[in-house]
Amino acid sequence: MPEDRLIDPGGIGATRQRLRDRAPLVHCMTNAVTMELVADTLNAIGAAPVMTLAEDEVVEIVGAADALTINIGTPDAARLSAMRAAAKAARALGTPWVLDPVAAGATAFRRAAAGRLLALGPAILRGNASEILALADGAGRHGRGVDAADTPAPATDAARALARDHGLVVAVTGAVDMATDGERTVRLANGHPLMARVSGMGCALTALVGACCAVTEEPLAATVHALAIFGVAGEVAAERSAGPGTFRAAFLDALYGLDTQTLAARLRPA
Amino acid sequence: MPEDRLIDPGGIGATRQRLRDRAPLVHCMTNAVTMELVADTLNAIGAAPVMTLAEDEVVEIVGAADALTINIGTPDAARLSAMRAAAKAARALGTPWVLDPVAAGATAFRRAAAGRLLALGPAILRGNASEILALADGAGRHGRGVDAADTPAPATDAARALARDHGLVVAVTGAVDMATDGERTVRLANGHPLMARVSGMGCALTALVGACCAVTEEPLAATVHALAIFGVAGEVAAERSAGPGTFRAAFLDALYGLDTQTLAARLRPA
Amino acid sequence: MPEDRLIDPGGIGATRQRLRDRAPLVHCMTNAVTMELVADTLNAIGAAPVMTLAEDEVVEIVGAADALTINIGTPDAARLSAMRAAAKAARALGTPWVLDPVAAGATAFRRAAAGRLLALGPAILRGNASEILALADGAGRHGRGVDAADTPAPATDAARALARDHGLVVAVTGAVDMATDGERTVRLANGHPLMARVSGMGCALTALVGACCAVTEEPLAATVHALAIFGVAGEVAAERSAGPGTFRAAFLDALYGLDTQTLAARLRPA
Repeated sequence: MPEDRLIDPGGIGATRQRLRDRAPLVHCMTNAVTMELVADTLNAIGAAPVMTLAEDEVVEIVGAADALTINIGTPDAARLSAMRAAAKAARALGTPWVLDPVAAGATAFRRAAAGRLLALGPAILRGNASEILALADGAGRHGRGVDAADTPAPATDAARALARDHGLVVAVTGAVDMATDGERTVRLANGHPLMARVSGMGCALTALVGACCAVTEEPLAATVHALAIFGVAGEVAAERSAGPGTFRAAFLDALYGLDTQTLAARLRPA
Repeated sequence: MPEDRLIDPGGIGATRQRLRDRAPLVHCMTNAVTMELVADTLNAIGAAPVMTLAEDEVVEIVGAADALTINIGTPDAARLSAMRAAAKAARALGTPWVLDPVAAGATAFRRAAAGRLLALGPAILRGNASEILALADGAGRHGRGVDAADTPAPATDAARALARDHGLVVAVTGAVDMATDGERTVRLANGHPLMARVSGMGCALTALVGACCAVTEEPLAATVHALAIFGVAGEVAAERSAGPGTFRAAFLDALYGLDTQTLAARLRPA
Repeated sequence: MPEDRLIDPGGIGATRQRLRDRAPLVHCMTNAVTMELVADTLNAIGAAPVMTLAEDEVVEIVGAADALTINIGTPDAARLSAMRAAAKAARALGTPWVLDPVAAGATAFRRAAAGRLLALGPAILRGNASEILALADGAGRHGRGVDAADTPAPATDAARALARDHGLVVAVTGAVDMATDGERTVRLANGHPLMARVSGMGCALTALVGACCAVTEEPLAATVHALAIFGVAGEVAAERSAGPGTFRAAFLDALYGLDTQTLAARLRPA
């Protein structure tokens, strides 16, 4: 599918409808801060979340899931071990999985954790610019917590290189979102600054990418559809909000109610 | 108390008022996803939550608590060990406790965990139809995450059998809620479909059952009162919501403000 | 700075503006129940939260942070060990850190944990009256979960004694908030009863104290500014709320939009 066909309101709306119709089971292994928002993002869009982190059961859960997402915020040894077990199970089953290398550049422990997970073959890698640059570097670049301080231009090159080297789709999100499979690159300018003032929006987007993977074959299309749905819902929510508190509620409402007409009216390829 | 007296707005309203007046301390050992909603449900209704999971202190906390609830979502070995210690302490003290066997059918690890806890003598077991069926089966029935895929009819029989075999009250919740002590069976048709699109509503209901147990002697009455309060608050909230995000906030508001007149106007025995 | 200068709308508004301008990185080691509200409080006020609890990386994170907060709700051995490592790192670096001894009087395990952390030299200690009394006592006073049952009068004396003995600032919060460095004592009567019906508001306040420490040199001034911002935002939010659910969202909105004029109109020294 060529790049311009990927940002098609009809195709995106069809993905959104399949989420409602099929209610895919998405296993989200995410950080301790944002579990509720991640689960509720999936609930709002029509998917079914399962959030377990226990190594004793992750392989069995992955076996039932339609997609897996792994987010390394609040890492620890037990959690990371369970994540690797889940990733291996997903790879063995051919179940698509998404890696979110939260603050990968912030500590040596995270860089190592993200590198080991990346080697287990995610279908999609999603992060902000500084996270993607940290993974591309390998070396000692220090990010600033979960912040996105780096400008997108070098991140785009890093994303393309990662995509080609690892044979996956890379999404870099920020004021402008981009997704690439190393050959094709798509950019979207949807979204709203309030999204950066709500904890866990990146984690929630990663979960939505996982859900879209479960109902849309091509990983680049699934990624772009998730970026589009997320960004447009954010814009709709911002218009109904007085700040980040009411925004969070309005965002889940907007995801829940999002239709193809709204997508068509608002999509902004960049 | 006969079945029809259990769904009495005056009695339910009196339970609701005792929650405000006595502010019972409810120890909720719940999963990592829904801790905030569970705590805020108790706060909204007037109870006082304590959420610790540390084996180093659960026995002392149970000693001060008016009720205990145990929810096996996001299980792991340390958490389950602390839960068993707490359940034993509650049993020894005669403090009522409630078991929520989240996704009990989803993995062997959960089925075993739920079975071991059930053997420690909860006063009340609350789950959706597939969870109750998984516990009744013992055997290898696989649930679908935290989803409720099974129809209520066989679940009703399973609930009655569990109630008689274990000498407890069983509540099966869904579009129609039911509660039974093995002899008497009560059904309520309150609630709203949006409740299924908010993560942790089942966990929150379990916490409310625990709170009602702390202020209402008879376990079946406490359970029915909790189901009634929860379902009616859900209906009130749905009328003030534009989707699952605003619903969550409106639901806590509705619990906070719920009065006997609203209960009387809305209760729907099924 | 004399006491009456500490409650100055201009000074408080300037702290609030510095939070927006500098976006300090605040490392919050908090309990499992309230991580999202704590992170979102910092996001709403303009600070950048990082919430990691892993001993493998806390020292590196503290090295990058502008302030550290430690909250012992939901304690366990691994978490407490990481907290002590982080506190030692902060002390070595001269990074200010804030201790929140949640329910310190409720169990022997918590009293010991709080005592060990207090010995590591926080700049500020924030709790409700029963928590501060439990720390001052050392002995076996039992608090009631996270509840504040004790009256503020003896707590004020306990706070002054703790402040002098340990060379720190102590804040005791409740219907009237107070802060003292052992010599000077400031009281504020801002806030609203709905704040006590939302889980984690105390934890969120502790995080805000940490953020204010990162941008305001004097610990007593930083503490009073945080109390003022938090209490005034609570009042603004209560006027826009129908209960604790909508309050939570309105509170984050109010923090986000808070300006010096609103502070000047509402500040109530007590």
